[in-house]
Amino acid sequence: MKKIDVAIVGASGYTGLELLKILINHPVFNITYVANSTGGISVSELHPSLDSVLDMDIKKVDAKELASVAQLAFLALPHKTSMSFAKELLALDVKVVDLSADYRLKLETYEEYYCPHEDKENLKFAAYGLAEFYEDQIKNTKLVANPGCYPTATLLGLLPFVPYMKKDTNIFIDAKSGLSGAGKKLSDTTTFVNISENTFAYNPFKHRHAPEIKEKVLELTDIDAKINFVPSLLPVIRGMLVSIYITLDEVCDAKQILKEFYKDDEFVRVKDNPVNIKDTSGTHFCDLYVEQNGDAVFISSSIDNLLRGASSAAVVNANLMCGLEQSIGISKIAYVP
Amino acid sequence: MKKIDVAIVGASGYTGLELLKILINHPVFNITYVANSTGGISVSELHPSLDSVLDMDIKKVDAKELASVAQLAFLALPHKTSMSFAKELLALDVKVVDLSADYRLKLETYEEYYCPHEDKENLKFAAYGLAEFYEDQIKNTKLVANPGCYPTATLLGLLPFVPYMKKDTNIFIDAKSGLSGAGKKLSDTTTFVNISENTFAYNPFKHRHAPEIKEKVLELTDIDAKINFVPSLLPVIRGMLVSIYITLDEVCDAKQILKEFYKDDEFVRVKDNPVNIKDTSGTHFCDLYVEQNGDAVFISSSIDNLLRGASSAAVVNANLMCGLEQSIGISKIAYVP
Amino acid sequence: MKKIDVAIVGASGYTGLELLKILINHPVFNITYVANSTGGISVSELHPSLDSVLDMDIKKVDAKELASVAQLAFLALPHKTSMSFAKELLALDVKVVDLSADYRLKLETYEEYYCPHEDKENLKFAAYGLAEFYEDQIKNTKLVANPGCYPTATLLGLLPFVPYMKKDTNIFIDAKSGLSGAGKKLSDTTTFVNISENTFAYNPFKHRHAPEIKEKVLELTDIDAKINFVPSLLPVIRGMLVSIYITLDEVCDAKQILKEFYKDDEFVRVKDNPVNIKDTSGTHFCDLYVEQNGDAVFISSSIDNLLRGASSAAVVNANLMCGLEQSIGISKIAYVP
Amino acid sequence: MKKIDVAIVGASGYTGLELLKILINHPVFNITYVANSTGGISVSELHPSLDSVLDMDIKKVDAKELASVAQLAFLALPHKTSMSFAKELLALDVKVVDLSADYRLKLETYEEYYCPHEDKENLKFAAYGLAEFYEDQIKNTKLVANPGCYPTATLLGLLPFVPYMKKDTNIFIDAKSGLSGAGKKLSDTTTFVNISENTFAYNPFKHRHAPEIKEKVLELTDIDAKINFVPSLLPVIRGMLVSIYITLDEVCDAKQILKEFYKDDEFVRVKDNPVNIKDTSGTHFCDLYVEQNGDAVFISSSIDNLLRGASSAAVVNANLMCGLEQSIGISKIAYVP
Repeated sequence: MKKIDVAIVGASGYTGLELLKILINHPVFNITYVANSTGGISVSELHPSLDSVLDMDIKKVDAKELASVAQLAFLALPHKTSMSFAKELLALDVKVVDLSADYRLKLETYEEYYCPHEDKENLKFAAYGLAEFYEDQIKNTKLVANPGCYPTATLLGLLPFVPYMKKDTNIFIDAKSGLSGAGKKLSDTTTFVNISENTFAYNPFKHRHAPEIKEKVLELTDIDAKINFVPSLLPVIRGMLVSIYITLDEVCDAKQILKEFYKDDEFVRVKDNPVNIKDTSGTHFCDLYVEQNGDAVFISSSIDNLLRGASSAAVVNANLMCGLEQSIGISKIAYVP
Repeated sequence: MKKIDVAIVGASGYTGLELLKILINHPVFNITYVANSTGGISVSELHPSLDSVLDMDIKKVDAKELASVAQLAFLALPHKTSMSFAKELLALDVKVVDLSADYRLKLETYEEYYCPHEDKENLKFAAYGLAEFYEDQIKNTKLVANPGCYPTATLLGLLPFVPYMKKDTNIFIDAKSGLSGAGKKLSDTTTFVNISENTFAYNPFKHRHAPEIKEKVLELTDIDAKINFVPSLLPVIRGMLVSIYITLDEVCDAKQILKEFYKDDEFVRVKDNPVNIKDTSGTHFCDLYVEQNGDAVFISSSIDNLLRGASSAAVVNANLMCGLEQSIGISKIAYVP
Repeated sequence: MKKIDVAIVGASGYTGLELLKILINHPVFNITYVANSTGGISVSELHPSLDSVLDMDIKKVDAKELASVAQLAFLALPHKTSMSFAKELLALDVKVVDLSADYRLKLETYEEYYCPHEDKENLKFAAYGLAEFYEDQIKNTKLVANPGCYPTATLLGLLPFVPYMKKDTNIFIDAKSGLSGAGKKLSDTTTFVNISENTFAYNPFKHRHAPEIKEKVLELTDIDAKINFVPSLLPVIRGMLVSIYITLDEVCDAKQILKEFYKDDEFVRVKDNPVNIKDTSGTHFCDLYVEQNGDAVFISSSIDNLLRGASSAAVVNANLMCGLEQSIGISKIAYVP
Repeated sequence: MKKIDVAIVGASGYTGLELLKILINHPVFNITYVANSTGGISVSELHPSLDSVLDMDIKKVDAKELASVAQLAFLALPHKTSMSFAKELLALDVKVVDLSADYRLKLETYEEYYCPHEDKENLKFAAYGLAEFYEDQIKNTKLVANPGCYPTATLLGLLPFVPYMKKDTNIFIDAKSGLSGAGKKLSDTTTFVNISENTFAYNPFKHRHAPEIKEKVLELTDIDAKINFVPSLLPVIRGMLVSIYITLDEVCDAKQILKEFYKDDEFVRVKDNPVNIKDTSGTHFCDLYVEQNGDAVFISSSIDNLLRGASSAAVVNANLMCGLEQSIGISKIAYVP
């Protein structure tokens, strides 16, 4: 098959590393350009585990140079930085999968929770990269906004049940993330001494992923859900387990609803036992489990925060944008044990 | 001060070890008898960390022998085993702090979730050992039922808010426990390889601590709460963090309610930042935090599952039963870092 | 390329799982037979992470059935069990890669440290599966004895320096292994509570991998080395870091010797900074580092105990036995972060 | 007993926190002064676990103010900062236990490995605070240099065997430390993501604790030992396990030598099974184990790096300097499980 040349911008972080790891072995995509904000270093200096695996220089990012060697770019950049660069690339006719928050939200929502938007034009055409729900949009766009990790795990668990919820009841989302979700920036929170043998909530009811969840639920179901989102950090490197608690309007067979809903989705597994993060770690799977107690429902959703929550989702989206099967080059083999 | 001779029965498990650790340095209680089901071993053979610290033989448990040397006994035994032995000790006029489930519940509830009760007589007189709510009963009884770890963390966080809850709304309790809560019995679940870098719910909506929570809420507030309890295991040795989600009937200042409620309680700290398990690990403190979002409330409760959730609570109860200050011999110094 | 049908016997353990994970995506080998001692279960029931990935039944092991569908078998069985089964398979003209200890040692050594040997005939023809040193033998045999994990990491680090060692000085090997090396059998040692936040030596100077190291050093260098081997357990799931301490006879440039020695080996990386276990975890690489202090030399060797120390080594050996490049289907992409 | 007023300078770090934890419950020492480099914060703001336990302000350090309220000061400061401050305090007649490296070494050694010494006068009178070997000097000095954590664990294991060593053979010390030993300063090395599921050597043969070990061995045994020291980091919060490898001159019963050597030492336990770090964590114990293989000897030494390796050793030294029993206020109860 004819190779498609692709670029990775923002290769220093964890999601940049995961993109490299996936794309090195991708049968169609061919990495021609890797960049970060400074350049002047090689891939294996930045990521020693790739020594003797990928011998490339990291460039100081430049849109024109990128456009001259790649047809599609993955942007693993901080929000705000991302949109100004995406704008340049799109003008140069490069397809973009953006892993930041910059194209995920409607304009008003974005500006309320982040900052003034600098690429309102392209924002209108961006597809939200949750392939189970937006496959057609993704296939027909040049700009995909990759979803956040918390919204990915939450939406996949919650959406099948939104139509069955009791009106105006609270949805409670208790979401636990591994430390890689906090990124590479040094902080007291992420030292081994502080987080090992520890766990705690952070930004309860105030995390910026809550409006992303709320907006997509409204868009897809027309229901203005009462989202109450509490993230926590777990002493694990990767993995995300989200507990979703809802109240039903009428009795229904929740397990049956879930199985039916995802019966054709290759990367969602509905399980008969409570899900864990180890079985999805290293893969693009989302594992789901549901349990009922009268009108109370508990949904448990497990993903690899760096893959399904970021980099493998980005490659799935790129596959679809390029007319490939979504599963090309995407791992189903977990890191267990 | 005159010493009081005490016994520990069930010295092999984690709560037995914690009892030993507390009582070795207790200024009033004097350990005269330590037993397990087999005997024939010394304390330091069973718990090598106590080598050169406590030089005692472990006896094969015998009620009469115990009663001849101790005035009070801590029973760290499996349920069912515990009640038959407690009955004997009480008949011999030995005070009992029972760490099992045997005297925690009303007869009907107990028999529904556990097994037929074999000591109905004493069950009537047992005090529930949550000192913040049952101090008078504990001071005036010869039999205390030490609460479960999940109910301890949950009740301390939930009870202040029960009067403010919206009628018939679901209470969701997302409770995370360290592995020591699963006890010493070998199982696939508790191996390092399976739980490190992992987390998962178990027995969602079906754990036996849920009826204990429901019954105490009813007893203390006269409200038949809709308790929905989901426990999870965390890859930590000790510690418990419980998230409680409720819906309010009317707007109120949750933080103010919590601070007022516990202003006189020495071992409950109401914090201004989300609580973590490290700051309570090694202590009898329960740390609480609350956050609101309209009518939705999130309460986060942290305890050391082996201490506040078992052994230090047992010693607090013994202190009160013997006319001592509750804080005698109880640690406030956490294991941090 | 024409597919080669292969079998995995002993699919329940960690090395069996790793074999499955490698072979599912192997471009030439085709899994036709998976067995354990009982059968009657599917691959995804045994290893839930493989749900929706590999849909096969696990058979109760039977040599004739295996021989009718596979040309080569991987045996991930306990020692003793392995040799009786290998014997049967070889008689049926099936190639065997044996991951147990049964064909690693000379007869006398084996019988001293293990048990009476039951397949002395084939033992004579077994190749020792350390491809960097025995490639020709492996290519020309029907039976490969896969090396132990400790010997693999140790021999790769030690062998380049044996000719430079001072006569009759002690070699000290301080080897640390992740918990998966202890296998799936339940024991107090491997519970999370006991090993997390802990580390300790076990069987110091008495581990059965010491004679394996000694014998191969003698065979390859004709030097009867004074091997002193001390293994320890680390609170990590996978990974092995071996410190080797030797005394030199004459001054030499150890780094240079090491680089020269492995300059043509695809799966050994000589590093300029001390090696860690994370950069090899998930791969077949052995990372080596050396440092000198006068006549004292420290060599640090890192491997993934389940892959380079067992299952990827087995597939490398199978590749060579079947006339393929050693690197076919072998991962170079680490699990980092 | 009459209280003795003491000060802690450098309260922000892990050793400062451990000093606070010990001294809060010390029956004789009374904390009257706590300082760091900035002041303007309370103890519980700096260390939230001490909320409701110790209500004191942290002062900006000032020698005169300290001298007006305390008779003895613990200095948990960086080297160089420490000596200039100790000098002031000693001139004001305050006893000093210095936890830095500033008074541990002879002048020439110090200046070779650290920096020019600024308090040569007091350096002459400093006692080395390893109570098992320097008790008399400690009792009769006003300045104690608290040993490093690695030298403490190493010297306690090595010194009994120095007289039996073969002349001019290498001593190899493979030392593993928990992350708290790296201090609170943020670095890539100490993040959870980088060290969890990882381990590696650092500064092999080049750590500054090696000359400290060498110098004390020479001072106490008159033997110029060939010390080869390789430290590693373990993914644990606290604890240190040191493997010492030596070659004997003549056959001897190593276990017997060790037991005899420490038969009167309250805080050294010679064990019959390999030692682990969990049984010493939280205590001042050093646990030792020895194994022989011909002329090769393996000694395993376990301590809590923050207590026996720093803060409890400091309090033991202060006890001795003040004419108290060394064990006053010193914990023997480990944090297990």
